[in-house]
Amino acid sequence: MTRAGPLSLNTVTVRPLTLAQTIEACARHGIPGISPWRDVLQAMGVDKAARHIRDAGLKVTGLCRGGMFTAGSRAAALDENRRAIAEAHAIGADCLVMVCGGLPAGSKDLPAAREIVREGLHAILPEARAAGVTLALEPLHPMTCADRSVLSTLGQALDLCDELGEGAGVAVDVYHVWWDPDLARQMARAKGRIAGFHVCDWKVPTTDLVFDRGLPGEGVIDIPAIRAMAAAAGWTGGVEVEILSNHWWSQDPEAVIREVKSRHAFC
Amino acid sequence: MTRAGPLSLNTVTVRPLTLAQTIEACARHGIPGISPWRDVLQAMGVDKAARHIRDAGLKVTGLCRGGMFTAGSRAAALDENRRAIAEAHAIGADCLVMVCGGLPAGSKDLPAAREIVREGLHAILPEARAAGVTLALEPLHPMTCADRSVLSTLGQALDLCDELGEGAGVAVDVYHVWWDPDLARQMARAKGRIAGFHVCDWKVPTTDLVFDRGLPGEGVIDIPAIRAMAAAAGWTGGVEVEILSNHWWSQDPEAVIREVKSRHAFC
Repeated sequence: MTRAGPLSLNTVTVRPLTLAQTIEACARHGIPGISPWRDVLQAMGVDKAARHIRDAGLKVTGLCRGGMFTAGSRAAALDENRRAIAEAHAIGADCLVMVCGGLPAGSKDLPAAREIVREGLHAILPEARAAGVTLALEPLHPMTCADRSVLSTLGQALDLCDELGEGAGVAVDVYHVWWDPDLARQMARAKGRIAGFHVCDWKVPTTDLVFDRGLPGEGVIDIPAIRAMAAAAGWTGGVEVEILSNHWWSQDPEAVIREVKSRHAFC
Repeated sequence: MTRAGPLSLNTVTVRPLTLAQTIEACARHGIPGISPWRDVLQAMGVDKAARHIRDAGLKVTGLCRGGMFTAGSRAAALDENRRAIAEAHAIGADCLVMVCGGLPAGSKDLPAAREIVREGLHAILPEARAAGVTLALEPLHPMTCADRSVLSTLGQALDLCDELGEGAGVAVDVYHVWWDPDLARQMARAKGRIAGFHVCDWKVPTTDLVFDRGLPGEGVIDIPAIRAMAAAAGWTGGVEVEILSNHWWSQDPEAVIREVKSRHAFC
């Protein structure tokens, strides 16, 4: 069994903290990577955040998130994605994580929604390439299809990568893909295109469709098995811990960070 | 647009009723089909239920459910499935709906769980064939993978059908498959093998992973589009309405039945 790569803390895992506090905590706890969400990045100010992150010596494994092509007007969504690309560039992020959006309000036309996503990705790809920011297409769990992401499987994400070419990759979050009977084949197919590897765990029971994720080891996902598939596909980066959880958000963030570190072994 | 086929009422939709009451209500409301769960069937007595259903002139579109191969001992699971096959035969059900089971307790080995399901299906297939009961493999939504069904996609179910041959088919529930980017291709592949077609709807938001399904029209699933795929694949049967919903269970069952009938147009 290969050892898990270096840890990266996604800021949503410690949502009660500001970005400045999270940067400081990562440095103090010896966590070498960070992945901010745009809300905390913007609250701190992009330039100031970039400076702090650099001064702390942290690797930025991703910026969360671009995408949401199906919400509101097409033009507004593309503009927002262009701003996200610029921010990802400014903080030296390895990639911009793309959460592509669910069904447009009032629509039941899933193929059409998927076409909007496809067109949106094509539209912003030139800016992403120019900025040197990889668009990391993140398939989200099918239970989010209606309201968060019509990009539902790794195979679907790789089909889009095939079409988009240079500048596109995938973000693999074990929470979203662990159930997939086609996972091993698609992970092999992802060779050289994995731009991010995210971990958390599927709790039994899961009581909320969005905010009840577990820390690695709290659930039933065989994370090391999926990480081994990523390693076989050439992934040499670390593991980004991204926990959306009402439970963990109610705990002391320092205790959560200690838990995250101690559970690195489950990754 | 083709018209929806005849209605069948899955007994769980009106969970507060006994099977005798549900049979009587179907007859009175002119609903031509019924699909009982085993608990209410056994509570009434299989022979008595078979007589009442026949006397009421109802078509039995399925018996819910066999499967659960991964829970408890292998021998006990197979015995339970054999009893289910006998019951399905006794009431003249078109098929036995197979909900195959989640991860065994304490296990994270998903491929092994899928192998247990595969072996279980092979083990009971001779009895199913002898009884003339089609095993309707029902892929369940990936959010149920841990605790209800490691059979997660229609493609995976059809792979098993390919292997099992005569006596195996699929139960397509729009709730479980609507999100699948590969759905159109797999529905075409299902030609001649659709043994049941179940409808309900995906609400936005969905607040519970099991018991928050909507009636047809309450959510975002394009049910007529999926039914058209079924028709193109040779499905000439009806639509079985199966709603697991804390909300609808709290309502007057007579009102629920009227709602089911009025929403036939959304199927």
